[in-house]
Amino acid sequence: MRKLVIGCAQLGPIQKSEPREMVVTRLMALLEKAHGQGATLVVFPELALTTFFPRWYMEGDAEVDAWFEREMPNAVTRPLFDRARELGVGMYLGYAELTPEGRRFNTSILTNTAGEIVLKYRKVHLPGHVEFDPDRAFQHLEKRYFEPGDLGFPVARALGGVMGMCICNDRRWPETYRVMGLQGVEVVMLGFNTPSVNSQKASEGPEARLFHHRLSCQSGAYQNSTWVIAAAKAGVEDGHPLFAGSLIVDPDGQIVAESETEEDELLVHACDLDRCAFGKDTIFDFARHRRVEHYGLITQRAGAEAPPE
Amino acid sequence: MRKLVIGCAQLGPIQKSEPREMVVTRLMALLEKAHGQGATLVVFPELALTTFFPRWYMEGDAEVDAWFEREMPNAVTRPLFDRARELGVGMYLGYAELTPEGRRFNTSILTNTAGEIVLKYRKVHLPGHVEFDPDRAFQHLEKRYFEPGDLGFPVARALGGVMGMCICNDRRWPETYRVMGLQGVEVVMLGFNTPSVNSQKASEGPEARLFHHRLSCQSGAYQNSTWVIAAAKAGVEDGHPLFAGSLIVDPDGQIVAESETEEDELLVHACDLDRCAFGKDTIFDFARHRRVEHYGLITQRAGAEAPPE
Repeated sequence: MRKLVIGCAQLGPIQKSEPREMVVTRLMALLEKAHGQGATLVVFPELALTTFFPRWYMEGDAEVDAWFEREMPNAVTRPLFDRARELGVGMYLGYAELTPEGRRFNTSILTNTAGEIVLKYRKVHLPGHVEFDPDRAFQHLEKRYFEPGDLGFPVARALGGVMGMCICNDRRWPETYRVMGLQGVEVVMLGFNTPSVNSQKASEGPEARLFHHRLSCQSGAYQNSTWVIAAAKAGVEDGHPLFAGSLIVDPDGQIVAESETEEDELLVHACDLDRCAFGKDTIFDFARHRRVEHYGLITQRAGAEAPPE
Repeated sequence: MRKLVIGCAQLGPIQKSEPREMVVTRLMALLEKAHGQGATLVVFPELALTTFFPRWYMEGDAEVDAWFEREMPNAVTRPLFDRARELGVGMYLGYAELTPEGRRFNTSILTNTAGEIVLKYRKVHLPGHVEFDPDRAFQHLEKRYFEPGDLGFPVARALGGVMGMCICNDRRWPETYRVMGLQGVEVVMLGFNTPSVNSQKASEGPEARLFHHRLSCQSGAYQNSTWVIAAAKAGVEDGHPLFAGSLIVDPDGQIVAESETEEDELLVHACDLDRCAFGKDTIFDFARHRRVEHYGLITQRAGAEAPPE
């Protein structure tokens, strides 16, 4: 048994006006609580330092850049990084990244128990749109404010296992898990902010959307024999509801813990990383069963092309 | 609305001693019943003409070949094909195929309402093993008796939609659905025979295995915005239980019909193929959202390679 005690740290809403310092105080409280329960890794949400700003249409660079971090850690987040190092707790943390070259990404980093950043990920599957869309019930402008990630889906040996990351909408794409599965991933960490209603289909509410969320996380876990740790930002941000559904999913695809509120809430589970082995050695022994000669379209073609009518 | 009324025709067990003529009589009864309920397409199981023979270890070619069909239709199945054509009902039918060159495949065909074979598929993801395995509770010798399919995952316009096929274990592999999704598939048909207990893990019984089955079919449907029609052969064949769980899954990933017995049983649903459009045009608009530059490992590498320790 290779036991890794993981805390899945859901955040309740962050209002537009809430300063990062207040948010970091909340993250610190969840970190301390997780440590108190024996966790050596805490997974925080996507864009964990601010409100989910891609719902707001902005034109000026200065207004946009105010939501971004120029370095990580920085003055505001350093106390969190310091405390995590003192406690010997690794972290997955999502934030909006502005590079020295002025590029913007939806990013997450992983620190080890010594407080070192050992892995960085930039969100590949950006949902939403670029321009203001009057036909939507609300905006989802990730394609406006971020470039698609340029780092692929890297994994790293850290915290005793093979660790991988993705962010929010990535979880709906089986390619995400598979590319990590092909690198032997044992823990997929992901943070998310997901509106409770489909902006383009009012009849699709939180129950249907939680179903899709669970389905995606559970199938990704099962089909790659990996733990999946999914941490939500939840609740109502300035009138805009986000569903919760923070999850810890085992390598069999079963949910072993799920959040019960839409507030700051901690799930803790002792994950046995050795439980990944059975699936990887039998039904999902990729080397024996995958037939890459028939998968060509997956990389040859981005969009679908139906046969002629 | 493009309505296609589909019958999902589950079979109860076929004992080793049951002749194909008797099985065809059962298939005909299900076909007639489906027609009576308005269906113009019936989906039958994998290896629908015989018992699930890969559980039996055989060495001689003659003994093996007795389970295979040299042509389709043939003398035994012609009455089924004739009746389907008379009724104007298309069929998905799974059978063991022996080619003129002596090659063996786990195959399915699709006929249109005129009784013509419009699509052929040969199972790509063969589970199990080649040699007798004394460590298993029972044998699963698909890799002994079949070659992996050599036709990829083709789709065809037929019966008013874009139709695709896979077989049994294929449904656990997201590549299966994705390759068809990239060809605009609207209905994925699949037959299966799945033991109720994991031959390598006695604690994994029918409840866990039905969960994995549903999870795989539902995520494949949702993530590609396609109907999935899954027809089981079920029940106890010569002491070996197969679970049922025949399903009709909508393009939202929701189960709209599921079998209730382990006997011959028919599910019928009026599938609106236009319901595939919303997902394909929004969250799963592949052209806008897929990032093939990060999927390379999916086709470069069959097996998993973890980073060095």
